[in-house]
Amino acid sequence: MTQTLSARPLSTADSQKLGFSNLRCRECGAEYEPVAKHVCELCFGPLEVAYDYDWLKRTVTRQSIQQGPHSIWRYRPFLPVTSERPIDVGTGMTPLVKAERLGRRLGLKNLYIKNDAVNMPTLSFKDRVVSVALTRAKELGFTTVSCASTGNLANSTAAIAAHAGLECTIFIPADLEAGKVLGSLIYNPTVMAVEGNYDQVNRLCSEVADRYGWGFVNINLRPYYSEGSKTLAYEVAEQLGWQLPDQVVIPLASGSQYTKIYKGFQEFVKVGLVADKPVTFNGAQAEGCSPIAQAFREGRDFVTPVKPNTIAKSIAIGNPADGIYALDIARKTGGQIQAATDPEIVAGIKLLAETEGIFTETAGGTTIAVLKQLAESGQIDPEAVTVAYITGNGLKTQEAIQPHVGHPLLISPKIESFEQALERARTLERLDWQEVSV
Amino acid sequence: MTQTLSARPLSTADSQKLGFSNLRCRECGAEYEPVAKHVCELCFGPLEVAYDYDWLKRTVTRQSIQQGPHSIWRYRPFLPVTSERPIDVGTGMTPLVKAERLGRRLGLKNLYIKNDAVNMPTLSFKDRVVSVALTRAKELGFTTVSCASTGNLANSTAAIAAHAGLECTIFIPADLEAGKVLGSLIYNPTVMAVEGNYDQVNRLCSEVADRYGWGFVNINLRPYYSEGSKTLAYEVAEQLGWQLPDQVVIPLASGSQYTKIYKGFQEFVKVGLVADKPVTFNGAQAEGCSPIAQAFREGRDFVTPVKPNTIAKSIAIGNPADGIYALDIARKTGGQIQAATDPEIVAGIKLLAETEGIFTETAGGTTIAVLKQLAESGQIDPEAVTVAYITGNGLKTQEAIQPHVGHPLLISPKIESFEQALERARTLERLDWQEVSV
Ligand SMILES: [Zn+2]
Ligand SMILES: [Zn+2]
Repeated sequence: MTQTLSARPLSTADSQKLGFSNLRCRECGAEYEPVAKHVCELCFGPLEVAYDYDWLKRTVTRQSIQQGPHSIWRYRPFLPVTSERPIDVGTGMTPLVKAERLGRRLGLKNLYIKNDAVNMPTLSFKDRVVSVALTRAKELGFTTVSCASTGNLANSTAAIAAHAGLECTIFIPADLEAGKVLGSLIYNPTVMAVEGNYDQVNRLCSEVADRYGWGFVNINLRPYYSEGSKTLAYEVAEQLGWQLPDQVVIPLASGSQYTKIYKGFQEFVKVGLVADKPVTFNGAQAEGCSPIAQAFREGRDFVTPVKPNTIAKSIAIGNPADGIYALDIARKTGGQIQAATDPEIVAGIKLLAETEGIFTETAGGTTIAVLKQLAESGQIDPEAVTVAYITGNGLKTQEAIQPHVGHPLLISPKIESFEQALERARTLERLDWQEVSV
Repeated sequence: MTQTLSARPLSTADSQKLGFSNLRCRECGAEYEPVAKHVCELCFGPLEVAYDYDWLKRTVTRQSIQQGPHSIWRYRPFLPVTSERPIDVGTGMTPLVKAERLGRRLGLKNLYIKNDAVNMPTLSFKDRVVSVALTRAKELGFTTVSCASTGNLANSTAAIAAHAGLECTIFIPADLEAGKVLGSLIYNPTVMAVEGNYDQVNRLCSEVADRYGWGFVNINLRPYYSEGSKTLAYEVAEQLGWQLPDQVVIPLASGSQYTKIYKGFQEFVKVGLVADKPVTFNGAQAEGCSPIAQAFREGRDFVTPVKPNTIAKSIAIGNPADGIYALDIARKTGGQIQAATDPEIVAGIKLLAETEGIFTETAGGTTIAVLKQLAESGQIDPEAVTVAYITGNGLKTQEAIQPHVGHPLLISPKIESFEQALERARTLERLDWQEVSV
């Protein structure tokens, strides 16, 4: 059933300038004007942005993309905004690092790290979705923006709102890592620390969104916001020389990013920018909050909510909105959804840092830990092109890793003191590093 | 006097492939082979890399640069390496942000922020100099690299050495910020915490360099290392549409970065990539470690060493190696070198964050504080194109800013609790934010 509710008639000029048109219900197909709305009035399904792929196919070329800015906005026709000048603070086009040293450790010959630990401006993939959401918020006339966040989203919303001159109130769980709280407060938004977990924060925000008419990036602006994650697919395809990878490993929180990377690859195939090819979608959760991995393991097509208890707070969403869609993609692409324990997550952070010089937060540690599981159990092909998505920076979750990195060797500023310490260090090195310092 | 000591005869093939040839003494002009050496044997002057500017002028075009990688290596002919494949982890090409909102606060119409707070991989400009130094270290056959550091350099050396598979030992003062210590330990180098200030650490390292034959990026590899800072000039010129700014504000530690940005602009003029034009060079120091600003104020052409006492640890070098060259540049370009107090530095960090969404460390706060002084005293032209260099990320010096950002409003997950808190927040907003939270 496809039905149009108060659809805005698109002018010819519009349709020649824009790839996107309406919002469409993922479940029943009902269409809506592209306003701040995220739930279908008929069936309560989630709304998604609809595009004119024929127009995109005619209009967008590899060259037109390459001539665009070195940011997510090079893919503007695939994003749900109308502005000629979207909010561009350099977000996106993060490195796709050929991970030779990590690959050797794991026995993978063609391993790449998509490194959003250095995304701009606030060092997580959230800068992508927020850049899109706040650009759209301005287009829709919002002057106050907001979000419910496990930390990274709050940092990003506060920073980009400051740059864009938008009023900002953010909601975080009260037990968040210090670096993530400071990383929001510094931009001087109003910060509400809610005594509850992320799911409770989220419910409160839905109520506030209804009552105050603010633009909540991940609630009433969610259809626009979530599209930003597609750029993680576009960039990887472009950086691989306009081809898709064979297999990916992605952390799962709400499941949104995972489904949008899938959508991004499919769109590039659909408009002829890359050749079609099967991509295996693997997902990573923290054992202490793994409702999607549990459902996958048990062969369920529904997700039973859990109460989070893990150091990987940025992905600790106990009731994941897009969990069922993630399950579907994993199964139809032949991928796995697995969980890593907190110690495995810590080991994953350290392994990535010491082999590749990339310092990621707990979510990235989860990805590397699951990548390691998959490699060791032979569930991914060691010859195939594999991309692991690293989505945030380790400087924001310092308390999670601090107890596990050991200490500097304390010396006095004399060569003798240095030489004694060097002798000690070399002795330690002869032992297993992990045994000594974990 | 120009004299060549054991100069390596350059083959035609070499000179057709490379912009750089020998090392040359800054004081007496003596030339040396391009090995790991930083002090002139004749006069103890600092050695610098010499280039063939005629060759560069014939060879390098705007187009050849634009077709290069989106990193510092697009300027490879201007950098002292021979490798076709230098160590490239995405370093450089950080955003040049048009700072509309900060500009309005300061009354500056054409203000830009060069944002190395998001440089890759370790979020400071040091990734530039280390990428160059470690590429050269590998070319010269070193297997162990090292540095004396106030923190950022240690992070960068440890990370890039990990990526490149080089052994690494770093030396830091024992009282460094926790984020900077963790930000080195995570890459698993050997870390020596020296009970002394940076100048003592540095002296110890010189001794170690002599005795162990390690490649110290900022000691025996210093001539190569310091050239990396020129990319901060090249990028700004390219990002401004191939022209020079009118005035710059740069933080001063050893003074090296400041002199190399000057050199970078001059080189681009020399080889015809940009038109010649006067650029006013302003420098920023922290009051608690301001030997160059003191010399400037007192009209001296020598720098008297001081003992550092400031929250701006990353620029707290009491005996700055290039201080006299910085003084010379400030004077001949009509610039100022000024100092900011610790409270001004904190206010500078907050001002930049709340207007532009950029979270910088104390060095960046120093730059913004001095920029504010210069704007308010009319010492810079409010109409002219002004570039302020932000060189590091605030997540690494959280303890410096933590006491000054206030706290979140603690609420329970209920709409009534939210509404009470919102009322409180709006009351606070009516007071002056800075009075409330500093
Ligand atoms: Zn529906
Ligand atoms: Zn000399």
